[in-house]
Amino acid sequence: MSDDGHVPAAPRRTPAAPRRAGTYRTFYSEPLTVASAQGCTITDTSGIDHLDAYNNVPVIGHSHPAIADAVHAQLLRANTHTRYLDDIVDAYSRDLLALLPQHIESVVYTCSGSEANDLALQVAAYSSMSSGVIVARRAYHGTTSATAAISPSLSPGPRDHVVTVDIPAAEDPDFEQDLADRVRRAAAELERRGHGTSAFVLDSTMTSEGIVAGEHVRLAAAVDAVHDAGGFYIADEVQAGFFRTGAWWGYEALGVAPDLVTLGKPMGGGMPIAAVAGPRVVFSDFGGQQRYFNTFAGTPAPIAAAHAVLVTLRDGGFGERVADAGSRLGEGLVDALAEAGVDGRIRRAGLMVGVDLRPAAGDDARAGALAEEIVEAMYARRVLVSRTGPGDAVLKIRPPLVITDEEIDRLVDAFRGALADVAGTGVRERADG
Amino acid sequence: MSDDGHVPAAPRRTPAAPRRAGTYRTFYSEPLTVASAQGCTITDTSGIDHLDAYNNVPVIGHSHPAIADAVHAQLLRANTHTRYLDDIVDAYSRDLLALLPQHIESVVYTCSGSEANDLALQVAAYSSMSSGVIVARRAYHGTTSATAAISPSLSPGPRDHVVTVDIPAAEDPDFEQDLADRVRRAAAELERRGHGTSAFVLDSTMTSEGIVAGEHVRLAAAVDAVHDAGGFYIADEVQAGFFRTGAWWGYEALGVAPDLVTLGKPMGGGMPIAAVAGPRVVFSDFGGQQRYFNTFAGTPAPIAAAHAVLVTLRDGGFGERVADAGSRLGEGLVDALAEAGVDGRIRRAGLMVGVDLRPAAGDDARAGALAEEIVEAMYARRVLVSRTGPGDAVLKIRPPLVITDEEIDRLVDAFRGALADVAGTGVRERADG
Repeated sequence: MSDDGHVPAAPRRTPAAPRRAGTYRTFYSEPLTVASAQGCTITDTSGIDHLDAYNNVPVIGHSHPAIADAVHAQLLRANTHTRYLDDIVDAYSRDLLALLPQHIESVVYTCSGSEANDLALQVAAYSSMSSGVIVARRAYHGTTSATAAISPSLSPGPRDHVVTVDIPAAEDPDFEQDLADRVRRAAAELERRGHGTSAFVLDSTMTSEGIVAGEHVRLAAAVDAVHDAGGFYIADEVQAGFFRTGAWWGYEALGVAPDLVTLGKPMGGGMPIAAVAGPRVVFSDFGGQQRYFNTFAGTPAPIAAAHAVLVTLRDGGFGERVADAGSRLGEGLVDALAEAGVDGRIRRAGLMVGVDLRPAAGDDARAGALAEEIVEAMYARRVLVSRTGPGDAVLKIRPPLVITDEEIDRLVDAFRGALADVAGTGVRERADG
Repeated sequence: MSDDGHVPAAPRRTPAAPRRAGTYRTFYSEPLTVASAQGCTITDTSGIDHLDAYNNVPVIGHSHPAIADAVHAQLLRANTHTRYLDDIVDAYSRDLLALLPQHIESVVYTCSGSEANDLALQVAAYSSMSSGVIVARRAYHGTTSATAAISPSLSPGPRDHVVTVDIPAAEDPDFEQDLADRVRRAAAELERRGHGTSAFVLDSTMTSEGIVAGEHVRLAAAVDAVHDAGGFYIADEVQAGFFRTGAWWGYEALGVAPDLVTLGKPMGGGMPIAAVAGPRVVFSDFGGQQRYFNTFAGTPAPIAAAHAVLVTLRDGGFGERVADAGSRLGEGLVDALAEAGVDGRIRRAGLMVGVDLRPAAGDDARAGALAEEIVEAMYARRVLVSRTGPGDAVLKIRPPLVITDEEIDRLVDAFRGALADVAGTGVRERADG
């Protein structure tokens, strides 16, 4: 009956082909091959140094020896899992929770921000007994099935259990009430569809909306609307957390405290670790119904890395450092735009910086094309940045937090040069005109 | 309008409480706190050595210096992401793909087995244009929302897009045809429900079914049935892969080759890394519709660990080693059962060993209780094992693959002692009677 060696045909036929999977997409028209990285510098295999101004994972700098040595020592000692106890995990958890509001009492570790948001959605759905989720129009919250479904920037197809809200302009003096009104309408729509409101999930710097930050950007009324609908406010701090904004957490500038908070990218400085934190009772309720065990999550080696990051940030005066560096960078970019006569708008929370080129270029598509040219021109000048937001028309600049004044000046010079490089293009002619 | 400092109430009220989240569950009535781990030994904080016979992550041994040193060197050099290229990632990918069938041309990295299975489901759903999934009755494939939904062992509630099949007994001489008939009926049911068949996902050692292995256990006819329904056969090698069964991949003993294969736990020896591999065109199609980027996945530090594991396994004679160790362990367990007059049944694929206690104890609940007593009695004798399968009545033994003959003998002695320890219990009296 059995037929050893029989190899059934795959449902899709496959030609012989190169082996780099088609899902991978690299940055830049000519991808960068990394040889080494130190501080804010990535050296490519031709020996050329690039200033990395687009990486919020190595928040204390690339190849930081405190991380490497802590991980090495831990890997030589033990690296088991959370079915056994390990004092380093408890110690880190205490240090981490001490940085969060008092009602955030428990933390559950995952391997990635995607897993953290996925788990937060599961926990919120279980506790709220609802399945509807409210997200920003261009949100990105991860690549698992469930987080991709609440990430319109990944897969824009409509989902019955997801309602998006347009984030008001950062300059809107009625930002808070306008957003709250939209959230309330979204909750009503989810109720009408029979899902109810499980969660309002928001990246605290609204990065994929083009970075939304400023004195009017407040969330309290919107969070009240979510609570009135029985849902959780989940602060996605995967991009905004760990001093990116100059404070430990991005939500601190928004006048709210989250019900659940998800952490990721900078948490382990590159070691895979992420987390969901929230009230203990919420996890207990969920854990009573469904066990959650994640083999690699919260294991001692990634925890050792996370601990090195936390201690470095906590004891390194990063609040002041990010405030100063962010100001210098923001002012430099404003000056460069003014000198070039380009009407761009800077939005900034600490060292999360957006340069919105839509005022210069008129429409999203032209602004996106201008942004793409500037990104490539800065790459040619050995400075790495990227873009985001509507039409990908907002330059996204988020260097490691250890960027020096000299490096900021180099970044601004490259931006100035890039603006000159693209001055001959149709887009710039219109902007200059 | 904004109301700085306003902290909205969480939807669920939270008492002051200890900070260990309720979702975590440790092994054993008295949890083990790890001080260090080497080879197959875990030393607790009281200085007591335990023989770890229940961990398929440190497949080449706990705290292996080849892994620690490779990760250390890489963390000091660079650890960026897959938006940039890094030669170590390409080199490892080539080495890994060389171990897989020729039609498996591409690999996409993730951080965890859960993420790997979640991505495999997304890819299969996209390519098959179907959403239905066939899994084993007690399957476990992960903890993301989508993989938890196909894991009846986690959350047994019915899901419209999931149909389970009972895995025939390993001893059934008609195993292959019986399973194929069940898969065909499951596919018909998914068709009737309007989902169609996207994937048949199977752990290659069927671990949570109680470990199903042996000469009759063949899949070719079932895979034909899946293909006839337009679906993918996804081999979940998260538990079975990397020489656990004495071959590189568990499916090799099943007379089939997978359409997609997912890898995990032992892959990085404890560093968080996992993967999906399959035909390039399948990933290209999916990647053309939806970008997949996973910040920590396939980064150089976990890849360095995975490379150290691969080289150690490839060059270490592990095929023969696992075959010999597995035989010694299997025979020792059989002898111990016979000496104790306990009617248990060993099912084994290499060093994935199940001791099914149901014949001894009559019903699943009594057998589960007996298994629990044996696990605790072995823990008291400083040997770590666990249990799985129907009623949790199957002892699950899966030591690191570097287990020595002396350690196997110690394991068998502890099993013999545990059987004597539980001889006075009601369950054993019945089994002895």
